[in-house]
Amino acid sequence: IQTKLPKVGTTIFTVMSQLAQEHGAVNLGQGFPDFSVPQRLVEELDRAMRDGHNQYAPMTGVPALRRAIAAKTERVYGHRPDADGEVTVTSGATEAIFNAIHAVVRAGDEVIVLDPCYDCYEPAIDLAGARAAHVPLDPRTFAPDWQRVRDAITPRTRMLMINSPHNPSGAMLSVDDMRAVEALLEGTGIYLLSDEVYEHIVFHGARHESALRHPALRERAFVVSSFGKTYHCTGWKIGYCIAPPALSAEFRKVHQYNVFCTFAPAQHAFAAMLEAEPEHYEQLGAFYQAKRDRFREQLLGTKLQPLPVPGGYFQLVDYSAVSDLDDAAFCRWLTTDKGVAAIPLSPFYETPPPGQRLARLCFAKNEATLDAAIERLRSLQ
Amino acid sequence: IQTKLPKVGTTIFTVMSQLAQEHGAVNLGQGFPDFSVPQRLVEELDRAMRDGHNQYAPMTGVPALRRAIAAKTERVYGHRPDADGEVTVTSGATEAIFNAIHAVVRAGDEVIVLDPCYDCYEPAIDLAGARAAHVPLDPRTFAPDWQRVRDAITPRTRMLMINSPHNPSGAMLSVDDMRAVEALLEGTGIYLLSDEVYEHIVFHGARHESALRHPALRERAFVVSSFGKTYHCTGWKIGYCIAPPALSAEFRKVHQYNVFCTFAPAQHAFAAMLEAEPEHYEQLGAFYQAKRDRFREQLLGTKLQPLPVPGGYFQLVDYSAVSDLDDAAFCRWLTTDKGVAAIPLSPFYETPPPGQRLARLCFAKNEATLDAAIERLRSLQ
Ligand SMILES: CSCCC(=O)C(=O)O
Ligand SMILES: CSCCC(=O)C(=O)O
Repeated sequence: IQTKLPKVGTTIFTVMSQLAQEHGAVNLGQGFPDFSVPQRLVEELDRAMRDGHNQYAPMTGVPALRRAIAAKTERVYGHRPDADGEVTVTSGATEAIFNAIHAVVRAGDEVIVLDPCYDCYEPAIDLAGARAAHVPLDPRTFAPDWQRVRDAITPRTRMLMINSPHNPSGAMLSVDDMRAVEALLEGTGIYLLSDEVYEHIVFHGARHESALRHPALRERAFVVSSFGKTYHCTGWKIGYCIAPPALSAEFRKVHQYNVFCTFAPAQHAFAAMLEAEPEHYEQLGAFYQAKRDRFREQLLGTKLQPLPVPGGYFQLVDYSAVSDLDDAAFCRWLTTDKGVAAIPLSPFYETPPPGQRLARLCFAKNEATLDAAIERLRSLQ
Repeated sequence: IQTKLPKVGTTIFTVMSQLAQEHGAVNLGQGFPDFSVPQRLVEELDRAMRDGHNQYAPMTGVPALRRAIAAKTERVYGHRPDADGEVTVTSGATEAIFNAIHAVVRAGDEVIVLDPCYDCYEPAIDLAGARAAHVPLDPRTFAPDWQRVRDAITPRTRMLMINSPHNPSGAMLSVDDMRAVEALLEGTGIYLLSDEVYEHIVFHGARHESALRHPALRERAFVVSSFGKTYHCTGWKIGYCIAPPALSAEFRKVHQYNVFCTFAPAQHAFAAMLEAEPEHYEQLGAFYQAKRDRFREQLLGTKLQPLPVPGGYFQLVDYSAVSDLDDAAFCRWLTTDKGVAAIPLSPFYETPPPGQRLARLCFAKNEATLDAAIERLRSLQ
């Protein structure tokens, strides 16, 4: 059997999680919290099941949840999408990204992605018969060079993908970046796919520049987010896509025949949570900032050099004072020999910058977990 | 925006459910039970959440669930798939069908489907850049004519899709049918996609001819099923695909970047259920047979003529004694004017048989619901 996806292997997140388990390593690799979901969320889900919400949800999502997402969006970004025509609930942000690509990207098209980028982008593009055009971000600050993006645009460019706060680096797009994107796309037929799953994990009250804040962007954008990061339940797989009616219509054609609808009781539970605790979103930055600040402080006692973390729950560290292994080899060694699992950056690139010595550590963990990791990282010479 | 899926509208199931709601009709349209999931299942899901199974499940599915599926498969069909290499848990059977198609079907290929067929098949084929070749089943018995299938095979045929027990008709493939499929596919590179979501809803102890019973078929087959029909929880969206290692590897490449994994707590809950109550499967036929027999008996008091129902939870009725509207118009009228929602058969066809006067009624309902529907149907003159 000849594969349709020759480049796809097991994702680095699975590889490192398995290695971590085999070696009893503290797992700061794959991005997921090791603490509990809010108790109230569990109870709301329980109630939804017992109330009998166990049959197909509407294909576009439970109406109360779509309305709650619209209301939350308005509260946070000052723009209220239409719950009926513009909000679609999906099986996680991953399905939303897959659908958005399949909704509008055709065989022979090109999609611009900014490297490093999350590893689900390119296979979805490939499966649509299109080609990913990789434009590198700055290897140290992870800022985009919009001139390079402009140079990558061809008549076949159908979509530009952006991601802020950025995985793996935590870098955030500024309002100037968004203006630059506006200028780039103006007058073109290029769609925007904005992956904003870390939208609420920002620090010092920083402002996340959602594409939804910008009328000239949102009219051509699929904006994707999820509850997994925001409610500490990455395994619940409830995400959503906000897009103008015409784009949502195409998105839903794919969603309808891809998964049709997603786990109904959780949709009811999130609808209840969003209504009952709208302030949950506002607290999330402070919650993670405490973890981030403490972890960074502790890292100063190691030979790993932490890079700035504007958003998200990943800490990049420069390990060049410790090792000149490449990042894949270093992360393996760190896991198997030092007992701390990390994620190398090279799998996020088509062409990793030569000599880059960075590893990604997830700090969405209990203090005890981070303390245990730090103790092991202190032994690095 | 030019659509990639010009044929796709809102699925007939959504259309009829909405119409039913607007008109206060008894909804025997969209296929879902109106009774509760097993209490134990709710409790197991609850336990899974409280035990902290709220982060990403493994991409292929929770190991205990994959093992339980393998054990169940062996118990029922005498063949044990390898839980690690051959079983993948998905976001419902719909995602499994979508993935299987995208895993092996390429642009320019053809996929043979037997009409009438479930409405998610063709859009997934179209999205893969391929073409559905429609071969009609017998318009009254819904038996396949394998010679016609053979005639439809071309050098571009990549896959044959079968579905037993069949939606919408309930028809079941016999062992002779399976031998015919074997003969058809022998020596070809054609894959088989076997949609078996109603596998456990069979009557009088009839034997479901799973493709998994047949070595010459399962070596080229994606066998798809789900827990939605079996545990009365169509809104939970946990399905699975069993396929040989090489096919599973390709399937997983799509799944990994389509949804990655599915709602983790439910996976743990089903693993526990399968282990605790293996006999659940064996009782399901009798449970639905009681409903089927009672409903058919009641239909004799109406002018609708019931067709045989070998499997599944749908009853086809011939309404030609009542109306000569086409089936779409009749089902609308039945919903809006008579207060009983039904599903027309024409959306399941590329070319509906001229003059076919059949509607589909779902009997996966409480007695009170079915009684209410029958009372209304008695008024048909
Ligand atoms: C789907 S596993 C990857 C989780 C994640 O978002 C990350 O680690 O970057
Ligand atoms: C996904 S809604 C359709 C449910 C169903 O299987 C049917 O009614 O045939």
